[in-house]
Amino acid sequence: MSAMPQIAASGLDSVDQIEVLFDRLWPLMRSLTGPGVRATHDILSEYLPLQRIEVPSGTRVFDWTVPKEWLVRQSYVIAPDGRRILDVAENNLRLVNYSVPFRGALSRAALEAHLHSRPDMPDAVPYVTSYYEPRWGFCLSDNERAALPEGDYEVVVDTELKDGALTISEAVLPGSENAEVLISTYTCHPSLANNELSGPLVAAFLYRRLAAWPQRRLTYRFVFAPETIGAIAYLALRGDHLREYLVAGYVATCCGLDTHFTYKRSRRGDTLADRAAVHALKSMGFEYRVRDFAPTGSDERQYCSPGFNLPVGSLIRGVYGEYPEYHTSLDNKALIDFAALRGTIDAYETICRALERNERFENLLPHGEPQLGRRGLYPTIGAADQADRVQAMMWVLNLSDGSHDLLSIAERSGIAIDQLWPAALAAEKAGILRRAVSKETARG
Amino acid sequence: MSAMPQIAASGLDSVDQIEVLFDRLWPLMRSLTGPGVRATHDILSEYLPLQRIEVPSGTRVFDWTVPKEWLVRQSYVIAPDGRRILDVAENNLRLVNYSVPFRGALSRAALEAHLHSRPDMPDAVPYVTSYYEPRWGFCLSDNERAALPEGDYEVVVDTELKDGALTISEAVLPGSENAEVLISTYTCHPSLANNELSGPLVAAFLYRRLAAWPQRRLTYRFVFAPETIGAIAYLALRGDHLREYLVAGYVATCCGLDTHFTYKRSRRGDTLADRAAVHALKSMGFEYRVRDFAPTGSDERQYCSPGFNLPVGSLIRGVYGEYPEYHTSLDNKALIDFAALRGTIDAYETICRALERNERFENLLPHGEPQLGRRGLYPTIGAADQADRVQAMMWVLNLSDGSHDLLSIAERSGIAIDQLWPAALAAEKAGILRRAVSKETARG
Amino acid sequence: MSAMPQIAASGLDSVDQIEVLFDRLWPLMRSLTGPGVRATHDILSEYLPLQRIEVPSGTRVFDWTVPKEWLVRQSYVIAPDGRRILDVAENNLRLVNYSVPFRGALSRAALEAHLHSRPDMPDAVPYVTSYYEPRWGFCLSDNERAALPEGDYEVVVDTELKDGALTISEAVLPGSENAEVLISTYTCHPSLANNELSGPLVAAFLYRRLAAWPQRRLTYRFVFAPETIGAIAYLALRGDHLREYLVAGYVATCCGLDTHFTYKRSRRGDTLADRAAVHALKSMGFEYRVRDFAPTGSDERQYCSPGFNLPVGSLIRGVYGEYPEYHTSLDNKALIDFAALRGTIDAYETICRALERNERFENLLPHGEPQLGRRGLYPTIGAADQADRVQAMMWVLNLSDGSHDLLSIAERSGIAIDQLWPAALAAEKAGILRRAVSKETARG
Repeated sequence: MSAMPQIAASGLDSVDQIEVLFDRLWPLMRSLTGPGVRATHDILSEYLPLQRIEVPSGTRVFDWTVPKEWLVRQSYVIAPDGRRILDVAENNLRLVNYSVPFRGALSRAALEAHLHSRPDMPDAVPYVTSYYEPRWGFCLSDNERAALPEGDYEVVVDTELKDGALTISEAVLPGSENAEVLISTYTCHPSLANNELSGPLVAAFLYRRLAAWPQRRLTYRFVFAPETIGAIAYLALRGDHLREYLVAGYVATCCGLDTHFTYKRSRRGDTLADRAAVHALKSMGFEYRVRDFAPTGSDERQYCSPGFNLPVGSLIRGVYGEYPEYHTSLDNKALIDFAALRGTIDAYETICRALERNERFENLLPHGEPQLGRRGLYPTIGAADQADRVQAMMWVLNLSDGSHDLLSIAERSGIAIDQLWPAALAAEKAGILRRAVSKETARG
Repeated sequence: MSAMPQIAASGLDSVDQIEVLFDRLWPLMRSLTGPGVRATHDILSEYLPLQRIEVPSGTRVFDWTVPKEWLVRQSYVIAPDGRRILDVAENNLRLVNYSVPFRGALSRAALEAHLHSRPDMPDAVPYVTSYYEPRWGFCLSDNERAALPEGDYEVVVDTELKDGALTISEAVLPGSENAEVLISTYTCHPSLANNELSGPLVAAFLYRRLAAWPQRRLTYRFVFAPETIGAIAYLALRGDHLREYLVAGYVATCCGLDTHFTYKRSRRGDTLADRAAVHALKSMGFEYRVRDFAPTGSDERQYCSPGFNLPVGSLIRGVYGEYPEYHTSLDNKALIDFAALRGTIDAYETICRALERNERFENLLPHGEPQLGRRGLYPTIGAADQADRVQAMMWVLNLSDGSHDLLSIAERSGIAIDQLWPAALAAEKAGILRRAVSKETARG
Repeated sequence: MSAMPQIAASGLDSVDQIEVLFDRLWPLMRSLTGPGVRATHDILSEYLPLQRIEVPSGTRVFDWTVPKEWLVRQSYVIAPDGRRILDVAENNLRLVNYSVPFRGALSRAALEAHLHSRPDMPDAVPYVTSYYEPRWGFCLSDNERAALPEGDYEVVVDTELKDGALTISEAVLPGSENAEVLISTYTCHPSLANNELSGPLVAAFLYRRLAAWPQRRLTYRFVFAPETIGAIAYLALRGDHLREYLVAGYVATCCGLDTHFTYKRSRRGDTLADRAAVHALKSMGFEYRVRDFAPTGSDERQYCSPGFNLPVGSLIRGVYGEYPEYHTSLDNKALIDFAALRGTIDAYETICRALERNERFENLLPHGEPQLGRRGLYPTIGAADQADRVQAMMWVLNLSDGSHDLLSIAERSGIAIDQLWPAALAAEKAGILRRAVSKETARG
């Protein structure tokens, strides 16, 4: 592990490679279920070894029931002038997600009840869903809506809701310990960029970074599932396991904007997940803000529900609901910044490296300082300056009392764990420190 | 309780009604004991059903002995020019409270030792007491004092100290639980407005508000007693009971000025009394400041003495000792603002409502979120906005884990308990939440 | 103890007396060991009754071995022009401390490897040591170095490293209790002013102040030892004792500059040492800053090593490494301010007095307030003003519940312990308070 590079080889991902994957995933008609989701997971499987889990429609998962699978064959409206408009083939936001089938002719007035636009953003097509209430509808910009003439409209919503399955994929990258880190992201939004594709892109390329590490102490679990129902279904399958082994987890969502990082703490607020994320952001020198847990947001709502209360936070870069293009057609490729998105992968990798290195050491020579000089660990000539690495060594030795892990030494000293780590290894090699048996448990 | 109005019917009190009671109580010669106190309690009894407790002179109450009862027949001075001056009949602050009887002729120089004025406030007559040291004396403005001519003065202090009793009154408004809230105020200052009458006025009209609630969970205890010795005597009678049942208490004093609220914390600093008061003030949008407990002030000194250490704070509006008119004839009707005083009643009622609603719920579906949509508790069509009531519901569900009461959910979420309450009731009705058995005890 | 003066008699020390001692100690060639150290301790013994401890060379003290004793007979260089330069007899910083013997002729180029100067401070001669690596060398200003001509230099380093001993001295000033306070300072730097002599000067004169107190509750232990190895050797001798009895300790170092005080907390951060120091500085009205513990600095590194973790901080006035003259010939008599140094003695005495007075009392009349008036402890006539001493009494009575010591009452009330102390004594005399059995242990 001492050979672990600061940042994994840049050959594993590049802005271009990320953009290629983005372009392939962009046009797919994703939803809670259905062929668009499976096509998405198929493409992702080229990047990491995903295991597919299909949860049949009708399965009870805690308080929820897995819905029927949704299939879109075609969907459009013929305007009074004969033009085909609101065609899902042109933009998959046009159709209210999970619309039930409908065919018929309607007056403009009757059609109105099925139209969705945003008066506050007159050029944007909104993203609208109706998963659990049978409805059909179309989305359009407010300007388009105003321009619809009076007359008869012919509506074609050629969809189908049928017994099928909910698609979840996972990939587990084993380490030498059973303690696990979770990266969870969702694949249920259709053509939306920051609030959809940034999460799977970060997760997929992060997997490749961690897989390229020469060794791993912790086990890393990557999950791709539809938001809410998917996370709940996953918890129904793996909740007991996570309760036992999870030491830190993150929901990767909305992480592709060229703006500051936002770390949202887990429900408990001081878990290892929170400490590693805050430390990594601080030590990387990026601009960041930390906010407390709230039970609104993404799938941390499920992981942090009171029956699980797992150590799961979320590292975000462009927070859902707080940028104007959110949940509209303007959340598209032009909005995200692929270099920033790659910086998010760096941040996640730094967090994982902090977790890897967060070991606990025991000072075997705790009475006074050990004589570092005769071990070649201290400058042998005393002058007014003291090197940073001596400081790192002093902190590691002084606080390696069995109750401090390296992250807590980093927090107290203000020295990055990546500076403390070589000091700890050198002291271990010199026989001054002994690695303590890991005390990490699922309770973080 | 769900029908409890936000603010109780305004018919229960009005600025005019409060002013009428003020005018009736103003002229009475209150003191630690005596007929003025009893007359005050008689009038208050028209507003709330007070139970009278008379503690005989000479009774030991902890380290104190109930003093003799004090009676004033007349008291004045005949000046050298024959004018009657410093007459208690003109202003009951003229006589040092608890003055012993005296009759005699004195030179101006000899009289000086018995005069009290405030050079720093030359127009004000100070309020002076000598309860436990036998003295007699007169109070006058510094300007009046300067104008007293040389010559012989005839002094008449026709008072009497005799075996009698100390008068305390209480009223208990029962709730469905034994847990109690205490409102304590004092009735020992003569014609002083903010630092006397504001407290009993707020307490009396607050009683009427709480009595008008359709139901009460908690029991409310109102106490009217002379300051210090009265509170100590009351603790001698009811201290053991309060130790067992009191969950929150407040000393109502100095609460009639048109200024910001000041909440003084209980000695323990984080009791339910403190949390409810701070939350109520915050959620009401009033300007307020919070200060820590100090063993100087009013009767919280006694309730928070180390042998009791009860959860008693004080909500003040115009702090004793911090406004210049304090303890002088300028603390009169012109100083107080009856609309502000009524606002103090609103604040106390809001605190009591927060205490009422501070229940603890248990989420019966704690694994992931419950599916609110099929219970009609969630918008069935997903769009970018999330209603405040959904947020309230999410917070209540996420934190109803048995360890959080509604106040702690309010504190953590920043949502007022009055917004959380309907969410909790709706979730209870839907069978998602169960009301936990009250864990509140006298230790708050 | 009630007769203890606020500041001890000024006859015990004066700026002149301090300066006399400074001048006597200044020229001695101090080092880890050797005759200069013994001469220093001999002179200090005229001021306080030091007990000498000689630890033989070769003794193992935890991870360290006491080095051979170092003797300097003469040391200089003959320049190409025949001038004798870099003579240790002129300035004892000229010779790298612990230089091994050497005689020989070197070219200027060959000499270079043995020269030490500070390009950033071209007029200063640096202070350089090489205790544990056999070397010899000379220190000079960068300007002197630049002026050295080409040519042959004759080097004489007539030193000797031989079996001897490491010199430590201690003085214990007994109190009525076994609980101890430690003042530790070092005597290993040669002619350096703030970073050497200020510490022993403060310690020596502080001893005299405490010895002049009419009585002492606590026991005070003063230690003079070389830095690092001396403190480690002392811990090898007295560590178990200190673990049992030490309640507070301070490393006196760098305390003679006319600047703000810096208090460096102990490793635990909230020990009695920390609380007393911060309270004393605050109550004295001096400018001060508080910093957290760091395992770099002076001998608190040893006292706070994880195997001991003693309650030892450091009160500094001109922090090592943070003033430019540090560890150079410019840290000389001109730099320090003897009045400021005497102020540091005042500060240490105030800290010790706070520790003395930090007793715990129990209120024997805890139910309501005791009636102070009839005991002559309260003004018998009530008026608008309340004296500071009444406030002090109220705080002491209210918080003397067995869990608060006087320092915690001072911290909570904002009243200096020196104001609380007479109130506590008066209440004890009146039978209201009882002194609690000391609960102080070595764990502070």
